[in-house]
Amino acid sequence: MDKIGIEEMIRTLGRLKTKEMYLNDFFLTWDKSDDEVAATFAVAEILRGLRENNLSSRVFDSGLAISLFRDNSTRTRFSYASAANLLGLEVQDLDEKKSQIAHGETVRETANMISFMADVIGIRDDMYIGKGHTYMQEVAQAVQGGYEDGVLEQRPTLVNLQCDIDHPTQSMADMLHVINHFGGVENLKGKKVAMTWAYSPSYGKPLSVPQGIIGLFSRFGMDVTLAHPEGYNVMPEVEQVAQRNSEHGGGSYKRVNSMEEAFQDADIVYPKSWAPFSVMEERTKLVEQGDEKGLADLEKRGLENNKKYMDWECTEDLMGKTRDGNALYMHCLPADITGVSCEHGEVEASVFDRYRVPLYQEAGFKPYIIAAMIFLSKFRNPADKLQELLVAGNRRIR
Amino acid sequence: MDKIGIEEMIRTLGRLKTKEMYLNDFFLTWDKSDDEVAATFAVAEILRGLRENNLSSRVFDSGLAISLFRDNSTRTRFSYASAANLLGLEVQDLDEKKSQIAHGETVRETANMISFMADVIGIRDDMYIGKGHTYMQEVAQAVQGGYEDGVLEQRPTLVNLQCDIDHPTQSMADMLHVINHFGGVENLKGKKVAMTWAYSPSYGKPLSVPQGIIGLFSRFGMDVTLAHPEGYNVMPEVEQVAQRNSEHGGGSYKRVNSMEEAFQDADIVYPKSWAPFSVMEERTKLVEQGDEKGLADLEKRGLENNKKYMDWECTEDLMGKTRDGNALYMHCLPADITGVSCEHGEVEASVFDRYRVPLYQEAGFKPYIIAAMIFLSKFRNPADKLQELLVAGNRRIR
Amino acid sequence: MDKIGIEEMIRTLGRLKTKEMYLNDFFLTWDKSDDEVAATFAVAEILRGLRENNLSSRVFDSGLAISLFRDNSTRTRFSYASAANLLGLEVQDLDEKKSQIAHGETVRETANMISFMADVIGIRDDMYIGKGHTYMQEVAQAVQGGYEDGVLEQRPTLVNLQCDIDHPTQSMADMLHVINHFGGVENLKGKKVAMTWAYSPSYGKPLSVPQGIIGLFSRFGMDVTLAHPEGYNVMPEVEQVAQRNSEHGGGSYKRVNSMEEAFQDADIVYPKSWAPFSVMEERTKLVEQGDEKGLADLEKRGLENNKKYMDWECTEDLMGKTRDGNALYMHCLPADITGVSCEHGEVEASVFDRYRVPLYQEAGFKPYIIAAMIFLSKFRNPADKLQELLVAGNRRIR
Repeated sequence: MDKIGIEEMIRTLGRLKTKEMYLNDFFLTWDKSDDEVAATFAVAEILRGLRENNLSSRVFDSGLAISLFRDNSTRTRFSYASAANLLGLEVQDLDEKKSQIAHGETVRETANMISFMADVIGIRDDMYIGKGHTYMQEVAQAVQGGYEDGVLEQRPTLVNLQCDIDHPTQSMADMLHVINHFGGVENLKGKKVAMTWAYSPSYGKPLSVPQGIIGLFSRFGMDVTLAHPEGYNVMPEVEQVAQRNSEHGGGSYKRVNSMEEAFQDADIVYPKSWAPFSVMEERTKLVEQGDEKGLADLEKRGLENNKKYMDWECTEDLMGKTRDGNALYMHCLPADITGVSCEHGEVEASVFDRYRVPLYQEAGFKPYIIAAMIFLSKFRNPADKLQELLVAGNRRIR
Repeated sequence: MDKIGIEEMIRTLGRLKTKEMYLNDFFLTWDKSDDEVAATFAVAEILRGLRENNLSSRVFDSGLAISLFRDNSTRTRFSYASAANLLGLEVQDLDEKKSQIAHGETVRETANMISFMADVIGIRDDMYIGKGHTYMQEVAQAVQGGYEDGVLEQRPTLVNLQCDIDHPTQSMADMLHVINHFGGVENLKGKKVAMTWAYSPSYGKPLSVPQGIIGLFSRFGMDVTLAHPEGYNVMPEVEQVAQRNSEHGGGSYKRVNSMEEAFQDADIVYPKSWAPFSVMEERTKLVEQGDEKGLADLEKRGLENNKKYMDWECTEDLMGKTRDGNALYMHCLPADITGVSCEHGEVEASVFDRYRVPLYQEAGFKPYIIAAMIFLSKFRNPADKLQELLVAGNRRIR
Repeated sequence: MDKIGIEEMIRTLGRLKTKEMYLNDFFLTWDKSDDEVAATFAVAEILRGLRENNLSSRVFDSGLAISLFRDNSTRTRFSYASAANLLGLEVQDLDEKKSQIAHGETVRETANMISFMADVIGIRDDMYIGKGHTYMQEVAQAVQGGYEDGVLEQRPTLVNLQCDIDHPTQSMADMLHVINHFGGVENLKGKKVAMTWAYSPSYGKPLSVPQGIIGLFSRFGMDVTLAHPEGYNVMPEVEQVAQRNSEHGGGSYKRVNSMEEAFQDADIVYPKSWAPFSVMEERTKLVEQGDEKGLADLEKRGLENNKKYMDWECTEDLMGKTRDGNALYMHCLPADITGVSCEHGEVEASVFDRYRVPLYQEAGFKPYIIAAMIFLSKFRNPADKLQELLVAGNRRIR
C-alpha cells in the first residue's frame, strides 16, 4: 500500500465509531460492533502499510506488554511479540513455572503484581471449557479494580490470544485474509463458507477456532455452513451467535453432518479437527476431580471415536466440488497433513502444498491484527494518531 | 503528583549528597547514608510522578539490564523488568539452566562474559546463609576488575534483588509505603513497628525480609520491635545494625518472644514467617556436604518445630490490640492466608482482605525503587537529569 | 578510539566493496571476500568506538532479532542480545520446547511463521555433522521464498551463531583480537599460528572452532599449523579451504601430529579439545537411527581414546617453546583448566591465569562482530550510515 492508499484508509477509519474500544479489552469478536470490527481491519492494514513504507508506528516510548501462555504457541507468541515491538512495547512473559505464585494466590493478586507498568496483557488459555474466558474476565476485573483503587497508574487492556470460546486474533486475521483475497469486504455477500471438521490422529484440539470462524464470518452476508460428524458439536451459544449474526448481516448459517455437502460450491473451505463439546466438558470435570484414569479413558474413547471419521479429509476430490474447483483453502496452522505430519490427517499433501503461500499470507495478518487491537484500546482518536505517524514520517530502519 | 510537586521534589533531591551512589552498587540499606536513602525515595517518587504525567523517563537509548534469579520470583522479576524498561534498558535474563556455564567456571569469568554491554545487573540469591551477599560481592569485584582491565567499556552496577542478609528493594518499597501512609517521613518519629514472626506450613523462608525491615525501619526514629518464638533468631549482626540505627535515629530497637507484646499499641505490624538463623546455617552446611538425608531430617524437624507456634497468627483479635485497632498491616506477598492458601497460616483471611488494597499499593513502589537505584548509580547529578526530563516533556504514550 | 579515529576508520570502510553483503547472510567466513571480512572488522571497531564515546548506534526504531539456540550458550547468547540491542532490535527467542512446532512441520513453515517482523535470525546448531549448516541454508531459502511470495515484507538475514562447519562470530572476534594485539592486520604476515587439539575429559565438542580458525586465520599471510593426535581430523573440505586461503594470502598451512612441533616458535597458540570428524559422523548416523546403545558405546570409546592423549595440555613448558616464550594464548571459553574445572584439562591453571585478561578481551569483540554482521546486511552504504550516526551525535546514556 502506498501513502495515498494509507491516507484513504485513515479517512475511512475516521468515519467509524471506536470510542468504546478505548481502554477496553478484546475478548470475543461478537462483543464488538460492526464498526469496531471494521476499524480493527483498517488499523491493521494501515500499520502494515506504514511498515511497508519503512515508517515507524512506535507510539510507546516505553511500556510492557505482558504475555501469559498456558498452552504452547509459536505463531501467536511471535505475532504478539511482533505487535508489541511494532508499537514500542517490550514483551515480559509470565512463565508460571518460574514464578513465585503461591498456592491459593488469587488471580486478583497476580494480575495486579504483574501490571504496575503494563499497558497490555495478552493471554492464551484455551485448554478447558468454561475456564479460559472466565479467567480472562477475572484478570480484567482485577486490573480494573487495581486501577480504581490507585494500585495501578494505568489500566492495562487485555487481548484474548485464544480462550475456550473464541480465538479472535486468529479469526480476525483469517477474515482480513479473506477480504484481501476477494478484493474487499463488499465482495463477500453470498459467498459460501465451509467450516468443517476434519480427521486428526490427535485428541482434544480446542473448539475456539471453529467457533471463532462461525461467530465472525457470519457477519458479512456470507452463507456459512458448519459441518461435522454427529456428536462433534461446538458450544450451542456460539451457534446462536452465528445464527443471529447471519440474520443481521443478510447471509445464512446452517449445520450439516457431511463434509461433501459443505464443500459443494464453497468459495472458502476451512477443514480442521476439534474435540466434541461434550467431550471437552467431561474432560474439564475429570481434570477438576483429578481423575487421571478417567482422563486416560476419555482420551482413548475420543481417539477411537475419531477413527470412525477418517474419511473427513480435505482431498483433491473434495476440493474439486468447490466453486470452480478453486475455493480458498484456509487453516490456522499447523495442519495435520496426510503422509507428512501423520499417516492420515486433515488434508491431502497436494492440496496443502498448492495453498502453502496463501496459508502463510493468512498467518501474516495476525501480528497486525494484534497491534490494531492494542492500538485501538490506547488511542481515543486512532485516525488522528495514525495520520500523525504518517506525517511525522519517522523511518523504522533509520 | 503534579508537575509543581515533581519540581519541588527535584529541588529536595538536589540538596542531598548522592555522589557516592554514582557508579556504585546497592547491596544493603545500612551501607547507605541517610541522604542516599532519602535520595532513593525522592527519585522513586519523581519517576512515578513523571509516569503519572505521561512523561518519558527514558534516559537510555540502548543498553542491557541483566537479571539472575537463583530463586523463583514474580513480583521482583516484574518490578525489575518494569524499572529497566522505564529507563530504556532491555532485560536479558541469565538462565543458568540454558547457559553453558562450565563446571568450575569462575564467577569472575561468567560476570565478565555477560557484561560487555550491561549497564546494570540485578541478582536474587537468597537461599543459603553466607552465600548470596558474598556472591554479589564477587560479581561486583569481577566487573570492577573487568572495567579496570579494559575488558568492559562500562562498569555495570549491581542491584541486590534479595540476598541472604537484606532485601533492599523490598524494605525500601515498604518504607516508601509507610512514608506515604503517614503523610511524610517527618511523621514517623515515635511510631511503633512490630516486625513479627508468623506461622506458616512451609519451611526455609529467607531471613532477608525481617532483617531488611529491622535494618531499615530503625533509622527513622521509630520504636522497632522484633518478635519471634524462642530459637527463631535472625542474624545477630543485623540486630546490631538495628540497635545502632535506632540509637542514631532517636528511636529504639528491642526483641521479644511474644507476638501480643509486639502488637500492643503498634502503628505498623509486619507478621511474616521465616526459618531460624541456626537452621539456615545448618542447611547451608548440609547442602555443601550434599547430605540429602540430613536435609530431609532438618526439614522435618523444622516443620515439626514450627507447629508449636501455630498460634503466631495475625488475627482480628491481635489487630484489635494495635493503635486504635488500626495499625498498618504489611507483607511482602504472597502471604500464607488461613483458609485460603493453607489451613493455618500467617494471617486471618478477614485481616488480609481488609488490607488488600494497601498491600498492593505497597508492592507498587518496588518498580520505582529499583528504577531509582539504577538511576542514582548512573547519573552524577540526578536532580539535573530529572529536571531535564521534566522540561523536555517527551510523552511516554506519544 | 576517539572521534578522529572513528572518522578515519569510516573512510577506510568506504573504500571496501560491501554491496554483496547487503540483504545477505553470514554463514561461513570463506564465503566472504577479503573486502567483506575487512569491512566486518571495520564496522565492529567503529561501533565499539561509537559506544565508547557514548554515541548511539540505534539504527532500528523497532524490529525483532530472532534467536534459535539448539545448544546451550552463554557467551554467544549474550553477545547476540547485546548486538541486537545496540542497533535497536529486540531479541525474541524461539524456544523449541515452548513452541507449538508440529511433528513433521517443515522448516519452511516455521521459518516463515517467526519472520513476519524479523530483521535478523541468529542460529546455533552445532551438534551434528552435516546438519547445522544445512538447516541454516534451509531457513535462508524459506525466508527468501517467503519474501518473494509476498508472505514476508522484509527478508530477514541470517547470522550463523555456530554450525557444524564454522563458528564465524567466534573466529572473527578471535581475529579482531589478534589484529588489535599485534597492532594492525599489516603486522600479521609471517606470524606462526598453532591451532592445536588439547585433552579434555568431556566428549563430542564441536569441530567448528578449529575449522573456523584455520579457515579464517589462513587468509592473512600467516603460517597456520593444525596439530592433533592421529585420527582427530577435522573436515577435509575445510582443510582444503585453509590450504587455498594460505596460498592466496601468501602464508602456509600444514597439519602435524605433535603439539610441541606446532608450539615451537609460535606467535599465537589456540589449544582446544574437539571430537574427531569420523566419530562425529558416526554419532550423527546413530542419532538418526535412534541407536541409544550405539551412542553410549561411541561415547565410551571416544572418552577412552581421548585418555591416550592426556599429555596434550597447554603447559608452562610448552608455552616456553613459543616465540620468546610469549605467544598469545587464545581460547573460545569456557576452557577445561587443570585442577580448576577438571583433574586434567586443556590448559595448566597458571597459563590460563596469566592470559585471563586478554582472553576476556578476546570474548569482548564478539558482540561488535555480530552487530557488524547485522549492520552490513542492512545498509547498502554502511560508511555513510555510520558517518551519519557520528555526526548526529545522539547519546546512548542521554
